[in-house]
Amino acid sequence: MTAPPRVAIQGERGAFSHAAALEVAPDDPEIVACRTFEELFDAITDGSADLGVVPVENTLAGSVQRNLDLLVQHTLYAVAETRVHIGLCLIGTPGRTLAEVRSAASHPVALQQCHGFFRKHPEVASIVAYDTAGSVKDLLEGRADFDAAIGSALAAELYGGEVLLAGIEDDPLNYTRFLAVAREPGNPPQHGAKTSLTFTVRHRPGSLYAALHRFAAAGVDLTRLESRPIPGRPWEYRFYADIRGVTLSEQMACVEALRAVTEDVRVLGSYTEAEVTPE
Amino acid sequence: MTAPPRVAIQGERGAFSHAAALEVAPDDPEIVACRTFEELFDAITDGSADLGVVPVENTLAGSVQRNLDLLVQHTLYAVAETRVHIGLCLIGTPGRTLAEVRSAASHPVALQQCHGFFRKHPEVASIVAYDTAGSVKDLLEGRADFDAAIGSALAAELYGGEVLLAGIEDDPLNYTRFLAVAREPGNPPQHGAKTSLTFTVRHRPGSLYAALHRFAAAGVDLTRLESRPIPGRPWEYRFYADIRGVTLSEQMACVEALRAVTEDVRVLGSYTEAEVTPE
Repeated sequence: MTAPPRVAIQGERGAFSHAAALEVAPDDPEIVACRTFEELFDAITDGSADLGVVPVENTLAGSVQRNLDLLVQHTLYAVAETRVHIGLCLIGTPGRTLAEVRSAASHPVALQQCHGFFRKHPEVASIVAYDTAGSVKDLLEGRADFDAAIGSALAAELYGGEVLLAGIEDDPLNYTRFLAVAREPGNPPQHGAKTSLTFTVRHRPGSLYAALHRFAAAGVDLTRLESRPIPGRPWEYRFYADIRGVTLSEQMACVEALRAVTEDVRVLGSYTEAEVTPE
Repeated sequence: MTAPPRVAIQGERGAFSHAAALEVAPDDPEIVACRTFEELFDAITDGSADLGVVPVENTLAGSVQRNLDLLVQHTLYAVAETRVHIGLCLIGTPGRTLAEVRSAASHPVALQQCHGFFRKHPEVASIVAYDTAGSVKDLLEGRADFDAAIGSALAAELYGGEVLLAGIEDDPLNYTRFLAVAREPGNPPQHGAKTSLTFTVRHRPGSLYAALHRFAAAGVDLTRLESRPIPGRPWEYRFYADIRGVTLSEQMACVEALRAVTEDVRVLGSYTEAEVTPE
């Protein structure tokens, strides 16, 4: 019998990161709640957690730039990916009805994504809180001066809240993609693997094109390409790429070929590709 | 005699955006201070400003994602670029000396970029303020409960402050690149022009590569490539590219060739390329 994995998340239990943790470690993981992403990376590095789930992009907000930088600064491995639907619920204490709600608290970003709800319910004041799941927790633990909180269905379930209204987000096509990171590489399959890598290109015309040519020549599908500045080298960039298709061996051969035309090539990890559109 | 141009900036007079405004409109422009970037874009659209300067990337923080989205959402033109060195000064009221300073206020990002200064001067408390230039203004107009403010040399000059210490930022290679936007296209030169454009690629393997091939085939130098999510089309991206080299006519021919392999191609504007490393 092995102990359940300890999975670090940023934020309170019931955050969307917690939902992501349950996707990558479904067997009753022990959740290690971290205040910041720096703490999360440290928790894995120092062994106080086995895995961590890190949001890397959102279909409305885009790339989570800070976390791409943290992935580069640490020597951890990407071992899994998962995509979580950001469905927001209006959550009350048991017995409360929607008609009684005069105030609803959540993180500013969540409040902003429920603009339509607040327009349709001008009697409900929006209250800024530090965290989505944290506002649900505060409400159910009796520490709130608001009537309802906006958070995930998981948060409602965890803290014993009642979902008064589900799907109150303005745009239902709101997904966040997470990478699971660990101290050791994962066990990616030969077929259906995806690889995340970073590289820099020499500062001269056509260098990025030469790099992408290596992908195209190998029949590799580039699903994402992001650039981040390199501190100390103004106007030069580190690229962050996700590749899929072909076999894992062919992906690795492509990475080797990339070393001839780029610098600082680093494989962040290979893992099983997740479904593109989750439920 | 023509009236001086009205140039919109986000933030108070004396902000780094103000320094950028003086670069693109050196002849005593009238500064239109806007609270948000949305207000800035509106001010140009409705004619209450002639030009606006918008930060699009920083050599430490990277792309200013929100402003790339605003450029796409509005039908304004990029007409100039400029790069401003983010040099931070400790500014006091006239007659004050460094030894007397017990607290210094600024925007959280500026405070964070002066970590070394605060470590070397543990006697100085850091005070969070809404704005760099705003904290200098408050100090000099007697509305401050702090002894010094951290901001630009321009802010010190404008509000009559004394620079107690210059260059207190941790990393001197800190530059922000701004685009100037207007209602009408600019007058870019045939040689030495740069063009900013956006495009989306079809959701299939090799499509980004096919797009970049058009640039490489035309001998065009791609200086920047950013991606942003497309709302309503999860995991699809709009690319934002800057191209230089070759003549302006050749750049435009390349843009036309791009239309065959990409969608929604839009030229944001062509303008004279700025020096890569300003003073």
